[in-house]
Amino acid sequence: MRKVVIGQAGGPTAVINASLVGFLENVEDTNVYGAIKGFQGLVEDDLVHIKGDLLKRIKLYHSIPGACLGAGRYNMDEEAMGKAVDNLKCQGINTLVFIGGNGTMWALHQLSKRAQYIGYDLQVIGIPKTVDNDIVLTDHAPGFGSAARYVATSVRDISKDLESMSNFEQVRIIETMGRNVGWLAASSGYLKNSDYDGPHKIYLPEQILYSHTFLKDVKDIVKDVGFATIVVSEGVHLDEHAVVEKAIVNGRKVLGGIAEELANIVQKELGLIARNEQLGMNQRSNQFSVSLQDRKEAYEVGKQAAVYMQNDLFNIMVAINRSEANDYSFQLHSVTLDKVGEGGERHFDEMFIKNPKHYYQWLTPLVGADIEPFPTMITRRETNEKQFNRS
Amino acid sequence: MRKVVIGQAGGPTAVINASLVGFLENVEDTNVYGAIKGFQGLVEDDLVHIKGDLLKRIKLYHSIPGACLGAGRYNMDEEAMGKAVDNLKCQGINTLVFIGGNGTMWALHQLSKRAQYIGYDLQVIGIPKTVDNDIVLTDHAPGFGSAARYVATSVRDISKDLESMSNFEQVRIIETMGRNVGWLAASSGYLKNSDYDGPHKIYLPEQILYSHTFLKDVKDIVKDVGFATIVVSEGVHLDEHAVVEKAIVNGRKVLGGIAEELANIVQKELGLIARNEQLGMNQRSNQFSVSLQDRKEAYEVGKQAAVYMQNDLFNIMVAINRSEANDYSFQLHSVTLDKVGEGGERHFDEMFIKNPKHYYQWLTPLVGADIEPFPTMITRRETNEKQFNRS
Repeated sequence: MRKVVIGQAGGPTAVINASLVGFLENVEDTNVYGAIKGFQGLVEDDLVHIKGDLLKRIKLYHSIPGACLGAGRYNMDEEAMGKAVDNLKCQGINTLVFIGGNGTMWALHQLSKRAQYIGYDLQVIGIPKTVDNDIVLTDHAPGFGSAARYVATSVRDISKDLESMSNFEQVRIIETMGRNVGWLAASSGYLKNSDYDGPHKIYLPEQILYSHTFLKDVKDIVKDVGFATIVVSEGVHLDEHAVVEKAIVNGRKVLGGIAEELANIVQKELGLIARNEQLGMNQRSNQFSVSLQDRKEAYEVGKQAAVYMQNDLFNIMVAINRSEANDYSFQLHSVTLDKVGEGGERHFDEMFIKNPKHYYQWLTPLVGADIEPFPTMITRRETNEKQFNRS
Repeated sequence: MRKVVIGQAGGPTAVINASLVGFLENVEDTNVYGAIKGFQGLVEDDLVHIKGDLLKRIKLYHSIPGACLGAGRYNMDEEAMGKAVDNLKCQGINTLVFIGGNGTMWALHQLSKRAQYIGYDLQVIGIPKTVDNDIVLTDHAPGFGSAARYVATSVRDISKDLESMSNFEQVRIIETMGRNVGWLAASSGYLKNSDYDGPHKIYLPEQILYSHTFLKDVKDIVKDVGFATIVVSEGVHLDEHAVVEKAIVNGRKVLGGIAEELANIVQKELGLIARNEQLGMNQRSNQFSVSLQDRKEAYEVGKQAAVYMQNDLFNIMVAINRSEANDYSFQLHSVTLDKVGEGGERHFDEMFIKNPKHYYQWLTPLVGADIEPFPTMITRRETNEKQFNRS
C-alpha cells in the first residue's frame, strides 16, 4: 500500500485545516502519516499515523483555525534537507504532500531534486495556502479570501468607531499583514462607500512611501473629512529606509511597527492625536470572518492533491484558475514546483493599483458578496446645514 | 410639544446605535434633537432636529458600530457645564437623554443639579453603555456582551494559531480593554476547553502583577504545554508601578502598552520568542461578533428611556436586572443618577475571581450560547506516544 506523508508549514490560516481534511477524505488504499510541526517533523522523524480516532479528531478540525498537525517555521538548510530525505526514504515513503506558501513550495522542489539525485523515487505535491496571496501561477490561494474579509470588515468597523471619536483622536493608522505584497492591505478599501468613509489612504509595499507625501495626505484628509483612517502594509518602506522589523527568528524577519512609526510622525509633525494598531493574528485565524468560498476552495485543493497523487503526477502544486465568465467559478490544474519556487513573490497587480474598482470586483467572490459597505454617516458637515438654531 | 435632546458620549460600542434607535422609535408627540459629538454638541449648541430623512437614515444605523451622532470625549469643566445648561434652557429643552458610561452618568448628574440650582426644570435620563462593564447598580450594561464575545473568540482563535507555531514563537501576550476593571480580560477564558488550551493565564487590574510571578508562570506553562497564551488587561499594574499609558488626551489617560512590556521581559529574562498584541478597536466595534442578546438589550434600554420620559421620571439611569430563574431573562428598572455617579467604577466580582466557572455561567446569555470551545488539538505530547517509528 502507498505510504504518504502530509504536513502543514509556515504561518497557519483560518482554512488550512480544510485542505488537510480535503486530502484525507479523498485518498484511497493509502497509509497516511502526518508530519508534526511541518518540516521539523520530517527532519526529526516525528510522524504520526493518521487513522482511526486520530483521523476522526482531525476531521473535527475542518473549520477550525490554526494548523492542527502543527506548522511553524523551520530552517531547511542543506543538512536539514538531507536528513528529511533520508528519513522519508528510510520509512519507505512514496509520496510527500505539504500545505504551504512560497517558501514551502521552494523547499519541496529542493527535497524533490535531492531525492532524485540519490535515486529515491519520491512523488512530491504542494497544496497552496497563504494570507498574503503572494504565490505565483495561481489566480489566488486559499487563506487569502478569509484574511481579506477580516481586513475589509475590520477597517470598515474601526473607521466608523474613529468617525464618532474625532474630538478625541483624529487619526488611526492600521497595519495589515502582507510582507512584501499589497494584496491584503489593498483589500481594506473593499467596503468603502464614499470618499468620506475610511480607509482614506492605503499604502502598499509595492510603492515607497515618502514622509512628506504621507504628512500632506493626512493633513488634507483631516481638513476635508475631520478624521483620517490610514491603512499601511507591514512591508512598506518609508523614505527608502529598510522595512521596520520586530525581530529575526529562525532566519526569518518578523515585520511590524511601521504603523507606530507613522503615528509618531503624525503626532510630532501635525500635532494631531494618532493611534496605531496592528490587525494582528486575527487576520489569519479569526473564525467569525472566514469566507465560505475560501474554505470550500481550501478543501477542494486538498482533495485535488489526492487525485493528482493517485494519477501519479509529481513535482507539482495544485493551482486555481478563475473562469472568464460573469459568474465566478474556479477550476483546478497543476503547475510545476520549480516554476512556482523560481517565480518568487507575486506582487500586487499594477492594473489593480491603477484601477482599485477592478480589484474589488476580482475580490468579491473570494471574500463573499454578503459583506457590505455601511451607509455614510450623519456628519458634522452635513448637519451644519441643518442646525437646530437655523431650523 | 415636548422638546428632547439625545446624545451619545464616550467611546462607542458595537451596539450603541441600537439604543438610540430604541429611543427614537418609541417616543410620541416629541420633537427630538440630536447632540452632535456628545457633550461637545451641548456646549457648542450643535444640535440637529431628528425627523424625516434624517430619522430614516439613523434607523439604518441600528446594527452599525460607532456612535452615529458622534460621541467622543469632551472636558466637562464648570464653564462647559454652565454653557451646556444655558444652551438647553435657551432652546426650551424639557428633557436631556444621554447614552454613555460612568463618566457620562456623573456629568448628567452635575448638569441636573446645575439646572435645578438655576430653577430650570430639566428632566435628565441616562442610558447605560459600556465595553468595560464598570457601571454600578446594573447587572451589566449593553456593549459589554459584544465586546466579551469578541475577546473570548479572538483569544480562542489566536491561541490555536500560536499552538501550531510553537517552533517559531512560544509566547503571545494579548492585551484587552477594560481600564481599571477586569470583566473583559476575564471573558477571554470563556472558550477554554482544557488546561492545555489558551488562555493559560489571565491578569486582571484588580490584582497587582509581580514580574517574578509572571516569569514563573510563563516558564511553567511553556514547560508543561509547549507554548503560552497570556491575557493581560490594559489596566494591570506591574510591580506596583503606575499603569502603562500611551497618552493623555482631553485630561483622560489612554492606557495601553503593558503587553509589550511583558513581552519584552519574557524575551529578555527567559530567552523565549514572545509577540504582543492589543485586541484594539475591534473589541468595541467589530460587527461580526456582535451578540444578538446584547443588541436586543441595547435597543430595550433605549426604548425604556422613552417610557420613563413619558412617565416623567427624572435624574435616573435605566438599569438591568437579571432574573434568578434558570433561564436567563432581564427586567428594566430605574436607579438614581447620583447613586450611579457616586458609585464609581464597578470592579470585577471577587466571587468570580475565586470561581471563574460561575463567571462563565453568568456570561453565557450575554455573549450568546452559540460560541463554543474548540476540541483540544493533536499535541506533540499526545503524538509522542503514537510515533510512526513505534507503531
